[in-house]
Amino acid sequence: MQQLTIDLGARSYPILIGPGLLSRREVFERHLGARAALIVTDETVAPLHLQALRAGLQGFKTSVLQLPDGERFKTLDTLATVLDALVEGRIHRDGAVIALGGGVVGDIAGFAAACYQRGIACAQVPTTLLAQVDSSVGGKTGVNHPGGKNLIGAFHQPACVISDTATLNTLTLRELRAGIAEIIKYGLIHDAAFFDWLEQSMHLLLARDPQALAYAIERSCRIKADIVAADEREQGRRALLNLGHTFGHAIEAATGYSEWLHGEAVGVGMLIATALSVRLQQLDASTLERVRGVLQQAGLPVQAPRIGATRAAELMALDKKVMAGRIRLVLLDGIGAARITADYDTQVLQHTLREYFGD
Amino acid sequence: MQQLTIDLGARSYPILIGPGLLSRREVFERHLGARAALIVTDETVAPLHLQALRAGLQGFKTSVLQLPDGERFKTLDTLATVLDALVEGRIHRDGAVIALGGGVVGDIAGFAAACYQRGIACAQVPTTLLAQVDSSVGGKTGVNHPGGKNLIGAFHQPACVISDTATLNTLTLRELRAGIAEIIKYGLIHDAAFFDWLEQSMHLLLARDPQALAYAIERSCRIKADIVAADEREQGRRALLNLGHTFGHAIEAATGYSEWLHGEAVGVGMLIATALSVRLQQLDASTLERVRGVLQQAGLPVQAPRIGATRAAELMALDKKVMAGRIRLVLLDGIGAARITADYDTQVLQHTLREYFGD
Repeated sequence: MQQLTIDLGARSYPILIGPGLLSRREVFERHLGARAALIVTDETVAPLHLQALRAGLQGFKTSVLQLPDGERFKTLDTLATVLDALVEGRIHRDGAVIALGGGVVGDIAGFAAACYQRGIACAQVPTTLLAQVDSSVGGKTGVNHPGGKNLIGAFHQPACVISDTATLNTLTLRELRAGIAEIIKYGLIHDAAFFDWLEQSMHLLLARDPQALAYAIERSCRIKADIVAADEREQGRRALLNLGHTFGHAIEAATGYSEWLHGEAVGVGMLIATALSVRLQQLDASTLERVRGVLQQAGLPVQAPRIGATRAAELMALDKKVMAGRIRLVLLDGIGAARITADYDTQVLQHTLREYFGD
Repeated sequence: MQQLTIDLGARSYPILIGPGLLSRREVFERHLGARAALIVTDETVAPLHLQALRAGLQGFKTSVLQLPDGERFKTLDTLATVLDALVEGRIHRDGAVIALGGGVVGDIAGFAAACYQRGIACAQVPTTLLAQVDSSVGGKTGVNHPGGKNLIGAFHQPACVISDTATLNTLTLRELRAGIAEIIKYGLIHDAAFFDWLEQSMHLLLARDPQALAYAIERSCRIKADIVAADEREQGRRALLNLGHTFGHAIEAATGYSEWLHGEAVGVGMLIATALSVRLQQLDASTLERVRGVLQQAGLPVQAPRIGATRAAELMALDKKVMAGRIRLVLLDGIGAARITADYDTQVLQHTLREYFGD
């Protein structure tokens, strides 16, 4: 088992990573700090992992709420059902929410914990690679609004994150690959040595080698933690985590959030951000080939859908990362070195969008 | 104009008190720190005070949402309408919510500001005496759930509190008196000299003397601020603010939250808490007469409804202030000196409940 601590003063919390953690009672005894909890999960995850978690929670007073599966249920209405279940389960201020599932479950359950009695403890138990390296860490919780994704929410740090790598064996290969895209992102923005390791070890991750997975998850969480600790409420550096996301957002929005997985869209988005960085002459052209190469090794797409540069630009402008009318972008100065800027030649951006999205 | 600052580090904010503040543009220019805002108010307050506020907000980009009036609309559904209005009003992260009204408007609008984009600025503009001395200060926001009052919410400190004492001229005398009950509470728990002043100056408050009102509001806010600053998240001393509230809660619940105003119930609750403190032999009997006297001066009720001691005890146990099965109470050691305890003779509590609520 690997452990790291997210250092946020009074709101610090541990991340535990390893195979079989779900059913290890001493993990929950030591880190949950509550004896009564509502387990929030979904209809896909419950048959796979609920039994193991119940073994880990022997001696705890628990009830279970099973949500429908899918981003389209990440709404205020679903939040209300979680709050109802907390009331019905007679969870008090010293109780907890346990979020067992992917990012959607974690976001809704975390937000419910943030609101219930003005904030109770939440244990994040992510069961997808994407959630283990991204959404479970950082304290962002929330639900969508027809006017925008994650428009309603709270910053609420978890009491602990328990990442059982054995749960990744139940993912489809496509979901695994989408999670790897975010792992590649961490190397690109912050850690050249980790990027090197990914180039060497991609086959181990795809084979779900437990040690390689635990290492990649731990390294990813540590990078995210370092960035989040410096900027808990997203004023500045935290935006580095959005590398590829503004382009990826355009892909997801243009294809109705159903065709592309988030990680796949972010993967292509990172490629476009790298290409733009090369065109702006701040980056060596060989870096673009390394980024393309590692994405291909992971089996991730490297071609954007031909939605047209104009449509792509429009969708990018609808994203939240706009300041004073100009889209802020995360660009690369090299492998492991990213920066946020709104100061770039928009002509060059146009060229790059046309290259990837078509005219 | 009087001004005090609630000192909470990076979340510090000013409280401004005085007649005619609503329409003073420089107040909003200096303290709001946003140029676009959604004004949230209700159907009762809007005809009385919205025009004055609009004068104060000249040059700001504002939209208005008018909620139905009443505690029964303090729900997640109403919260959703505020969030919808924020999206429709195109309020961004640097925008604000302005809560114009009593405690219900302040709680809902403040909670919407806490959730929207994971937290935007909120200006509290309370128009009742109760809200000016209580709910607008301290950062508690939220809505009710069928399972309990304020069960869903957030701690979200306002950007500023603007208490226009001229708005109090539109209150009924009964509402004014209910606000005075909370003012008496501050003297009782923390400030003997202020309690003395209240005994001497009650006639000025009832006559809505602007200077007396501003003084009483400022003193009340300062006491609340001192207690909240020491205990922002209600772990300990903040519970002193609940003097009389556990008994008052039983009165409100037994009478369906419609017959008694909150302040009226709290007034009688403080009397019962004082009587219990005398019976437990920690307090001189003359103090009980002073408390009864000042409540009578204010024209507040001093008799509880005869709901029976058993029913009262049941309803008290449903309140949130229960720890390990034993009701924590705020008791008096003297005028201006209160403490929180779960260590008392329950027989004596029973006697006191029978005296006030009947068998």
